[in-house]
Amino acid sequence: MFEQEKDRAELAETIEDLVARKRYPQLRDLLLPMEAADIAQLCGYLDEKVSLVFRLLPKELAAEVFVELDSEEQELLIQSFSNTELKEVLDELYLDDTVDIVEEMPANVVKRILSHSDPETRKSINEILKYPEDSAGSIMTTEFVDLKETMTVEDALKHIRRTGPDKETINICYITDKNRHLIGLLSIRTLLLAEEDDVIGDIMERNFIAVQTLDDQEAVARSLSKYDFLALPVVDTEARLVGIVTVDDAIDVLQEEVTEDIEKMAAILPGDRPYLKTGVFETWKARTPWLMLLMLSATFTGIILTYFESSLMACAILTSFIPMLSGTGGNSGTQASTAVIRALSLGEVQFRDLFRVMWKELRVSLCCGLCLAVVNFGKMLLVDCWLLHNPAVTPQVALVVCATLVCTVLCAKVVGSTLPLLAKRIGFDPAVMASPFITTIVDAISLLIYFRFAVVLLGI
Amino acid sequence: MFEQEKDRAELAETIEDLVARKRYPQLRDLLLPMEAADIAQLCGYLDEKVSLVFRLLPKELAAEVFVELDSEEQELLIQSFSNTELKEVLDELYLDDTVDIVEEMPANVVKRILSHSDPETRKSINEILKYPEDSAGSIMTTEFVDLKETMTVEDALKHIRRTGPDKETINICYITDKNRHLIGLLSIRTLLLAEEDDVIGDIMERNFIAVQTLDDQEAVARSLSKYDFLALPVVDTEARLVGIVTVDDAIDVLQEEVTEDIEKMAAILPGDRPYLKTGVFETWKARTPWLMLLMLSATFTGIILTYFESSLMACAILTSFIPMLSGTGGNSGTQASTAVIRALSLGEVQFRDLFRVMWKELRVSLCCGLCLAVVNFGKMLLVDCWLLHNPAVTPQVALVVCATLVCTVLCAKVVGSTLPLLAKRIGFDPAVMASPFITTIVDAISLLIYFRFAVVLLGI
Repeated sequence: MFEQEKDRAELAETIEDLVARKRYPQLRDLLLPMEAADIAQLCGYLDEKVSLVFRLLPKELAAEVFVELDSEEQELLIQSFSNTELKEVLDELYLDDTVDIVEEMPANVVKRILSHSDPETRKSINEILKYPEDSAGSIMTTEFVDLKETMTVEDALKHIRRTGPDKETINICYITDKNRHLIGLLSIRTLLLAEEDDVIGDIMERNFIAVQTLDDQEAVARSLSKYDFLALPVVDTEARLVGIVTVDDAIDVLQEEVTEDIEKMAAILPGDRPYLKTGVFETWKARTPWLMLLMLSATFTGIILTYFESSLMACAILTSFIPMLSGTGGNSGTQASTAVIRALSLGEVQFRDLFRVMWKELRVSLCCGLCLAVVNFGKMLLVDCWLLHNPAVTPQVALVVCATLVCTVLCAKVVGSTLPLLAKRIGFDPAVMASPFITTIVDAISLLIYFRFAVVLLGI
Repeated sequence: MFEQEKDRAELAETIEDLVARKRYPQLRDLLLPMEAADIAQLCGYLDEKVSLVFRLLPKELAAEVFVELDSEEQELLIQSFSNTELKEVLDELYLDDTVDIVEEMPANVVKRILSHSDPETRKSINEILKYPEDSAGSIMTTEFVDLKETMTVEDALKHIRRTGPDKETINICYITDKNRHLIGLLSIRTLLLAEEDDVIGDIMERNFIAVQTLDDQEAVARSLSKYDFLALPVVDTEARLVGIVTVDDAIDVLQEEVTEDIEKMAAILPGDRPYLKTGVFETWKARTPWLMLLMLSATFTGIILTYFESSLMACAILTSFIPMLSGTGGNSGTQASTAVIRALSLGEVQFRDLFRVMWKELRVSLCCGLCLAVVNFGKMLLVDCWLLHNPAVTPQVALVVCATLVCTVLCAKVVGSTLPLLAKRIGFDPAVMASPFITTIVDAISLLIYFRFAVVLLGI
């Protein structure tokens, strides 16, 4: 099943060929059994022939494919649609998908979409668009099954049969009172397994988790994943049910947030487009600011080195171990900061664990540092001194390097593990406190320690 | 709703207090409205009182809480259970959860669990345990709804009402022929919205995606997320339906794989326990190997520096820019490799895009490099030369540093973006080719370029 990746280019060729030879019925037969997401990926290879292929598909599948396309492709398609075609596609879309599309389109396209949606949908779209980006409100749908406490199971099933086709999910139903306050929920399983004359109020689940419209979408997604729910109800400040967030959207949010975290940890300003679709200029803009900042902050290490120039002149061999020391410091810091940042974002660690984290990292770094120092001491005497016959590498020099190594690892791990926690505490994004930033700090500290040891142990 | 994090410690205190004062009915009332995942987190604060609290819960909730506990806590609880209690909990568990638990327990506990499961469950557990770790088979459940093509909707609903309580999900039903080959699937929505006398064979979906038992669990999870499915059927090599993977398990797999990728990118050997629950020794073991390897590989940069010692002596100021150059090289490489690794794992990039990726990174790195070089040239003349009155920083030296900067960024981005793709090609994990590894390579190349420029432009 997963061999499809390889065949995709081949399949695209077949399709192009069928289009060129105008073999439309065959093309249709080829596409019909495929999943919407796969057809959408194929469209990436088809360029201007997309709208042709698109018109071959039955309306429902066409709409599903449309949702999966990139926003540029969607825009091109919309521009090629007649008003009737646009209305047909819009009628098939779920509300949350329409909102996603509207959010990405330029103003003139938005206007066209809104003017071809029915009045009720238009009202809902405008309401969802009001919620801030990244809020629960912005990713919810208002198409949920709404039941009343007093209904019997039979009534409820009838209600679902009547309204179900337009709902995003019927797997969980929501029970509201006459003021639209959410008072309970009910899975379709419970409903199906109940007796026909059971009353909804008696079988519904009254203990439930709900989120607020303004809650962060990442927190909502984490909740869905933590409790293994298929959907979470979204309520307004007066506890009235206004929508639901479904698990498929939650997965997308989790993936996007992870990509953002990873980008921040690599000193990239997060973007929201796939790697190959991001232009050179855009990529440059996302990468230069941090590179620039970190480059300029290296001025400090430069000043330190200039300050100790005479020591370096007196014992030139010390220079050759600086890359190793700063590399090991950087790597140690990265390990600690990455572990803590990930634990923070998984909710495994909080600010109040600061001292537990420090205590753990202290012990780990001592073990790591000593271990590295012993190996490095042996390596310096064996390789540099004995094998490469470098007379400058004396046991004293090795001692300076290895003592610095232990201190560098120690300080890198402590700085690396505490900075993200402190950042979180003062409301910064912990991921920004990741490796590159910490490396720069650790570099400076490590050089200061190095020269201190050199002065004391080598008397220079 | 998400203020709970803060209140958890407080809540744990209240519970401890209630336990101490033996106010069990109040304790029960406090716990009953809570979600299983939340009670499980509270158990972390309760230590040996867990089994007491556990016995207060109704059987079903108790089983749900049990599933959410850490494996150590599960083991302690099992050891405190009487045989009857163990059997009661096991009877409430879904099969895939039982398998997860069995996989983590020591042999004697596994034996006890198996001997208290009913024979059919025991057989299924043993079968699932046979599948390799990380395969679709190992995360599937065999508790799915199985329908026949010839059933009417009424028959099917009756069948679901009878067997539904023991199934992990009834939201998607699977249709098999008499040889247990999967021939179609049907959502509960389609079933509910159909007429009572419709025949399953007529309304079922015959185009579906299925995975094989030995498919990688990450690929399965990605598929679920790509197609927005709630479950995926798992078939054996003869296309017989053997189980299903549900979306909640897929989310867990995606999260675990991301954590693993992030750890590998930070030169940590991936583990599977939360940060604070991993012992110092275990953390040390996960972190030292890469630190050691990278430390030893820095020998090369050391050798390069020793080789050019006389040049450094002739122009000592060159030393002070080495940390800035290697830092910027490292950061540039990290940006490129991280972007490519993430794109690879999201399926946005494949090996055959190698030249597109290189071409893109070449242009991005030229822009970044030139931009940094110009700023750095200005900074060196303004700050180092003019403000800090360092006579050694001449325009020629600045030129050497800035020319090296451009080349370093160029080479870092190209190496950083291509190594993960090459790693993937030869079957290595691209994440291992991440920043620390690339930094070491780039460090060495950048020093060689630096000294080449110094020799040419400064004539040393």
